[in-house]
Amino acid sequence: MRVRRGVLWFNAAMQPGFKTVALIGKYKSPEIAGPLTALGGFLEGRGVKVIVDPLTAQHLPASRFEVHPLEETGRRADLAVVLGGDGTMLNIARTFAPFEVALVGVNQGRLGFLTDISVDTTLETIGSILDGHYVTEERMLLEAEVVRGGQSTMRVVAFNDACVNKGSMGRMIEFDVRIDGQYVCTQRADGMIVATPTGSTAYSLSAGGPIVHPSLSVITLVPVCPHALSNRPIVVGSDSTVEIVMRDAGDARAHFDSHSRSELSDGDTVRAWRYPHTMRLLHPAGHRYYDMLREKLGWSGAFAAATRSS
Amino acid sequence: MRVRRGVLWFNAAMQPGFKTVALIGKYKSPEIAGPLTALGGFLEGRGVKVIVDPLTAQHLPASRFEVHPLEETGRRADLAVVLGGDGTMLNIARTFAPFEVALVGVNQGRLGFLTDISVDTTLETIGSILDGHYVTEERMLLEAEVVRGGQSTMRVVAFNDACVNKGSMGRMIEFDVRIDGQYVCTQRADGMIVATPTGSTAYSLSAGGPIVHPSLSVITLVPVCPHALSNRPIVVGSDSTVEIVMRDAGDARAHFDSHSRSELSDGDTVRAWRYPHTMRLLHPAGHRYYDMLREKLGWSGAFAAATRSS
Amino acid sequence: MRVRRGVLWFNAAMQPGFKTVALIGKYKSPEIAGPLTALGGFLEGRGVKVIVDPLTAQHLPASRFEVHPLEETGRRADLAVVLGGDGTMLNIARTFAPFEVALVGVNQGRLGFLTDISVDTTLETIGSILDGHYVTEERMLLEAEVVRGGQSTMRVVAFNDACVNKGSMGRMIEFDVRIDGQYVCTQRADGMIVATPTGSTAYSLSAGGPIVHPSLSVITLVPVCPHALSNRPIVVGSDSTVEIVMRDAGDARAHFDSHSRSELSDGDTVRAWRYPHTMRLLHPAGHRYYDMLREKLGWSGAFAAATRSS
Amino acid sequence: MRVRRGVLWFNAAMQPGFKTVALIGKYKSPEIAGPLTALGGFLEGRGVKVIVDPLTAQHLPASRFEVHPLEETGRRADLAVVLGGDGTMLNIARTFAPFEVALVGVNQGRLGFLTDISVDTTLETIGSILDGHYVTEERMLLEAEVVRGGQSTMRVVAFNDACVNKGSMGRMIEFDVRIDGQYVCTQRADGMIVATPTGSTAYSLSAGGPIVHPSLSVITLVPVCPHALSNRPIVVGSDSTVEIVMRDAGDARAHFDSHSRSELSDGDTVRAWRYPHTMRLLHPAGHRYYDMLREKLGWSGAFAAATRSS
Repeated sequence: MRVRRGVLWFNAAMQPGFKTVALIGKYKSPEIAGPLTALGGFLEGRGVKVIVDPLTAQHLPASRFEVHPLEETGRRADLAVVLGGDGTMLNIARTFAPFEVALVGVNQGRLGFLTDISVDTTLETIGSILDGHYVTEERMLLEAEVVRGGQSTMRVVAFNDACVNKGSMGRMIEFDVRIDGQYVCTQRADGMIVATPTGSTAYSLSAGGPIVHPSLSVITLVPVCPHALSNRPIVVGSDSTVEIVMRDAGDARAHFDSHSRSELSDGDTVRAWRYPHTMRLLHPAGHRYYDMLREKLGWSGAFAAATRSS
Repeated sequence: MRVRRGVLWFNAAMQPGFKTVALIGKYKSPEIAGPLTALGGFLEGRGVKVIVDPLTAQHLPASRFEVHPLEETGRRADLAVVLGGDGTMLNIARTFAPFEVALVGVNQGRLGFLTDISVDTTLETIGSILDGHYVTEERMLLEAEVVRGGQSTMRVVAFNDACVNKGSMGRMIEFDVRIDGQYVCTQRADGMIVATPTGSTAYSLSAGGPIVHPSLSVITLVPVCPHALSNRPIVVGSDSTVEIVMRDAGDARAHFDSHSRSELSDGDTVRAWRYPHTMRLLHPAGHRYYDMLREKLGWSGAFAAATRSS
Repeated sequence: MRVRRGVLWFNAAMQPGFKTVALIGKYKSPEIAGPLTALGGFLEGRGVKVIVDPLTAQHLPASRFEVHPLEETGRRADLAVVLGGDGTMLNIARTFAPFEVALVGVNQGRLGFLTDISVDTTLETIGSILDGHYVTEERMLLEAEVVRGGQSTMRVVAFNDACVNKGSMGRMIEFDVRIDGQYVCTQRADGMIVATPTGSTAYSLSAGGPIVHPSLSVITLVPVCPHALSNRPIVVGSDSTVEIVMRDAGDARAHFDSHSRSELSDGDTVRAWRYPHTMRLLHPAGHRYYDMLREKLGWSGAFAAATRSS
Repeated sequence: MRVRRGVLWFNAAMQPGFKTVALIGKYKSPEIAGPLTALGGFLEGRGVKVIVDPLTAQHLPASRFEVHPLEETGRRADLAVVLGGDGTMLNIARTFAPFEVALVGVNQGRLGFLTDISVDTTLETIGSILDGHYVTEERMLLEAEVVRGGQSTMRVVAFNDACVNKGSMGRMIEFDVRIDGQYVCTQRADGMIVATPTGSTAYSLSAGGPIVHPSLSVITLVPVCPHALSNRPIVVGSDSTVEIVMRDAGDARAHFDSHSRSELSDGDTVRAWRYPHTMRLLHPAGHRYYDMLREKLGWSGAFAAATRSS
């Protein structure tokens, strides 16, 4: 497997010229009306066409920005600026996935894994990005489906993970793992997580999975509380197709990004593979992934907190 | 904490004289009718009074053993011989817990953690136990309740564990942990396991908990897929009362031995403490806990299987 | 195993009357001369006899406190006040172990697991302890020896742990684990940690061991990077004797509290058991173990740091 | 990162024609003289030129095969057949790495991760490979060096891993991790493993690292017993350069495949990156990686061994 790193540097000379920018604000969060209005005005002042979706438009009653259905804004925009947290960003990323629109995340609170621009420096940073000073990161997504009796009953795009989990009865479930059509093993467990590199710092990490650099194109399988102590996380190439085949489903569920879900029965298969489009995330010039990781995981405070005794 | 080991050796001279023996067979398992009949006849031949519960009696249509409701057999018996697997043993142990009746487990298949007499040597081993050649192991149990609005809505005895788990929505739950009335921490996780030493080799082990010697009187708290990486298993004394207080319950459930369960709402508390009675498990003389553990966990095959490359 | 909690509350009425107090300052730390002098004067003012060891005396050139060899101060004192970090406290605790002198730890920097009185409130807190307002915690220690050819070649008291570790060649070592003379398993690993509850938050925690409440009297065995994936931490009673018998020692070493060490050869045994004396640690009235744990392990900041993405 | 899978299928029509085959036998293992002689005769009978190294020649006193120094056999051969275990294979692979000679492993005992042809079927399987019926797997290797004061003091090729470990004093070491020149974090730990996918089932797995499919071109960093609980394994692209910079080396050592080693001092850097050549491993047609993994890790016996209680 050759590696093509997903991080590319652009400079002003090669700037792509963002002509249409979609502005998306976290729903039901009146406190972002102010920053949204300021940013909208700033973008217009830069000669950029601003478009919004209907729910964001509710935050901007006085504006005259074009309003389009959310999916349509993704189709029309060169760049989408999302004001909210990582959760909002994930929702937008899923919707915009087919259009490969560049995404930028602005966070009002503590910076997130995906939303790394502070609301305090928004105008300055977005201006700089419009000038072409940014880093582009391309992240892989998963496509997944639930198959019952040979028929696909659900098909989704997942940014973090496709999971199988026991339901509310609290009984272990039993399933086969298959990769590229080959039988890998039968597991009894609370569940199985099939994660993207982006998802490697989410549920997968809690279950003992490794941190995977977001530029990689690999898929990580992480068992949740496996009965057999030798079942461990496995990292495979993103050209692999992963299948979880339910043997004893109990009241198991499939979950995709903790967002979409489906009940599972014995014999059902959850299948996941690389989505053909990537997610393009823009960061301010000078962004460093490891700085963010160290900050988010508390490594910076490694010697001040979260440590054992000596 | 002083330690009184729960393993005691008896010899024939100090034999307690088992006069009434309850015989319990795994339900819906016609294949155990033969061994049950043989064992019943053997016990009668030894001059012991044999009593059975109604479901076991169905396996023994030709016998004239006294039949009593299951709980009543526990009240009357000096010794209960259980034919089945660890699951059957757990069910009987829970029912018989208040009576401290001595329990012996006979397993038809692969020996279990609790059922360590092979069906092939049953008569010989049970005869030897009647002669006073055995080891007694006393194991602690948990008592647990669900409290809502100050009222206890459910109260159970648990042999393995009292657990809180997320439900079928697949969303993390949030709860406070309190021990002896003191606030310990707030966790976001898939769940929390409060385990007895017996339960330490069950669900708790899958979630990363330690193996705890069954003679100890301690309680182990094991978080399931905790959001914060510094949340680790904690072992406390069995005189502690553990409380899990739901802050964001979602569709969380409480589970006790994967057997009883209860839905949980925000503010509900799952409380667990040491049950006043112990479970008395008899083993054949010469029984060694670590031999069983090594066999069950595959340590005997440590160099032949389940190992990394060199 | 019945539990007798190691935490007892005293009040003024039952105060033991500390008449002789040993004052111990971290060596080679000139900055503690000031606090030491202030504390010495305060104690004298309270009518308490103050004694110091020769190295602490170097910090107090102007004082007329009685000077005794370190061990002798432990023999004479009712109470020892240690100014330093957890490392200094461990060293003093080992030396004073046979005398069961009560210990109090004052920390100039960030509070430790054992040294939980801030230098800023020393006089007030020590005064309060002299008045009888404190909590006594009794902690178990380990005694350990290295046996070669039937002869004990080294014998030490360990506060945290007795460990076997591979040496500088970087080759896995192989050893048998025996508990109470029974064979448990053969492991190939980087090493094995035999830890006290106090040691459970030290090296043991890094290797995947559970946190054990310091009032418990149990011993935890934690394998370090075991070759077989099913080798897990085990908690046994403190009346057990643990033996690590070297099969393929390579250049293995035994370590006790990362302090004393011994080379090991094939056939050597490292044996550990509960030391007959306990360590008596005094805390200010109102001290709560879980508050300290939460602070030290960063649980207080669970939602602000060291967490996965959502 | 696009993925090019390292597994390619050849058939007879496109057979590369192995004209010169190096035959390598495990040293100091007289029991392989028989199989070696049989295989040598078989290869000659197939019209292939057989060459051996001096140590293998000692097993074949009666043969007239050309003898060359080990490295020279690697330079001249189209294919090398190794009789021995995974350890022998690793040694040969390191020596032959610059020549990209195809390797086949024959194992006399239990099949290994790398040596997957049974001695019982050697002639048949090797004959089939000569006919062009095989799978080629290309595996990445690491190149690593120790840098002191700006000078490289040691440079090696590693098949499994480049490691930093504490030495015999048993004291934690402290180091910075840098990737592609960026500071990642400072760790205090027993050590750090930088592993290839091949090494992911070796030392890395014992320390909690994930299993990585051998066709991937990624590097995994696995901390050994890290002081900070939030330090976890990280997977990065193979175009990254990883540096471990010693801050507090104590008596730390660098180890490469548990084979070469170097003492480390404060300020020393261990640097690792992808070696420009790959290792070409041939497997019999029909070889399935997951079958081997399941067998080696005991997953096939998942329900018969190495499992928790229920």
